[in-house]
Amino acid sequence: MKSHRQELWLETPTRVAFVNITPKVESALAASGIQEGLCLVNAMHISASVFINDDERGLHHDFSAWLEQLVPYDRARWHHNRTGEDNADSHIKRQVMGREVTVAITGGRLDFGPWEQIFYGEFDGQRRKRVLVKIIGE
Amino acid sequence: MKSHRQELWLETPTRVAFVNITPKVESALAASGIQEGLCLVNAMHISASVFINDDERGLHHDFSAWLEQLVPYDRARWHHNRTGEDNADSHIKRQVMGREVTVAITGGRLDFGPWEQIFYGEFDGQRRKRVLVKIIGE
Amino acid sequence: MKSHRQELWLETPTRVAFVNITPKVESALAASGIQEGLCLVNAMHISASVFINDDERGLHHDFSAWLEQLVPYDRARWHHNRTGEDNADSHIKRQVMGREVTVAITGGRLDFGPWEQIFYGEFDGQRRKRVLVKIIGE
Repeated sequence: MKSHRQELWLETPTRVAFVNITPKVESALAASGIQEGLCLVNAMHISASVFINDDERGLHHDFSAWLEQLVPYDRARWHHNRTGEDNADSHIKRQVMGREVTVAITGGRLDFGPWEQIFYGEFDGQRRKRVLVKIIGE
Repeated sequence: MKSHRQELWLETPTRVAFVNITPKVESALAASGIQEGLCLVNAMHISASVFINDDERGLHHDFSAWLEQLVPYDRARWHHNRTGEDNADSHIKRQVMGREVTVAITGGRLDFGPWEQIFYGEFDGQRRKRVLVKIIGE
Repeated sequence: MKSHRQELWLETPTRVAFVNITPKVESALAASGIQEGLCLVNAMHISASVFINDDERGLHHDFSAWLEQLVPYDRARWHHNRTGEDNADSHIKRQVMGREVTVAITGGRLDFGPWEQIFYGEFDGQRRKRVLVKIIGE
């Protein structure tokens, strides 16, 4: 069994952002030399997500607007913010969108359906944060 | 390390539907000959889910009704639909319910608690779509 | 390839509870002897979650209160409860928070960012329930 580990660093200019990281995951996979296996991609921070959906800016707008309605920033509402933080909503938004994806590796490629793309979802940005790529297989 | 890949094709008669695919995943596992490992089951389409919950029709009704209230079809509301699509809600519903499950394989069986069953969750049906089963182990 | 399987048993004194199970997962990992691989941690019950977030009691309060507003207990509302159950809301809350996490194993450790901790999320407690830890690698 082979394994490969790589970190991706991101810093988004806005508090909430969606970044297509598929090419970077593909590069990590190429570097691994793994042909058959599983690829885990996860946010290493608990106010960010990794998820798979469509690379369409209207949809990303919809995600943001819907999440803000579902889990408003509303600093005074959340007990977590009594610690001095202001990102309780980010922790909850990340929970809705998910921490991680696991992707099958087949024939040395991400084994994807026609429209699958991997996104980093940032809910408390404007600082450097990391995504972990861990690939195991042969 | 061994690996096994199989696609399941589904076409649901309704826009929203939940289909128990556990027997098909068990067949894929039997075909793999793998005794110890991990089994990834994921929707290959970004308006569908794979998740684990109860095989009870009342609960499936509750999932549908609750999701429709949380993320209404409401074609005019979503920016994604300005592209000519009408399935923005399906992309968001899939995000709530999840893309994938990873299941432990122990002694050649899906290592499940008493009520766990694997479902395909369709949110934009009435056409042929795919689920990927990828199993790695020994 | 090596594999290791362990069950964690939990019984929470309240219906809804969040329990940090990171030390127990670390013990399972140490017992496995695995240095490089993947660790799956999943609820074996369909009214409970395993997820990764912050070990901060204010945030856990926020999770509970927000989930209760999003998916109220409201016994009469849910069709699932017509079977005699009263836990339809638990099944849906678990869906929002997720069933499982997959964690990278690197150098014999859980490969975590600075604040990541693994939680068992109980939504229908006050009875003995199980979490599965399955580790594969070398």
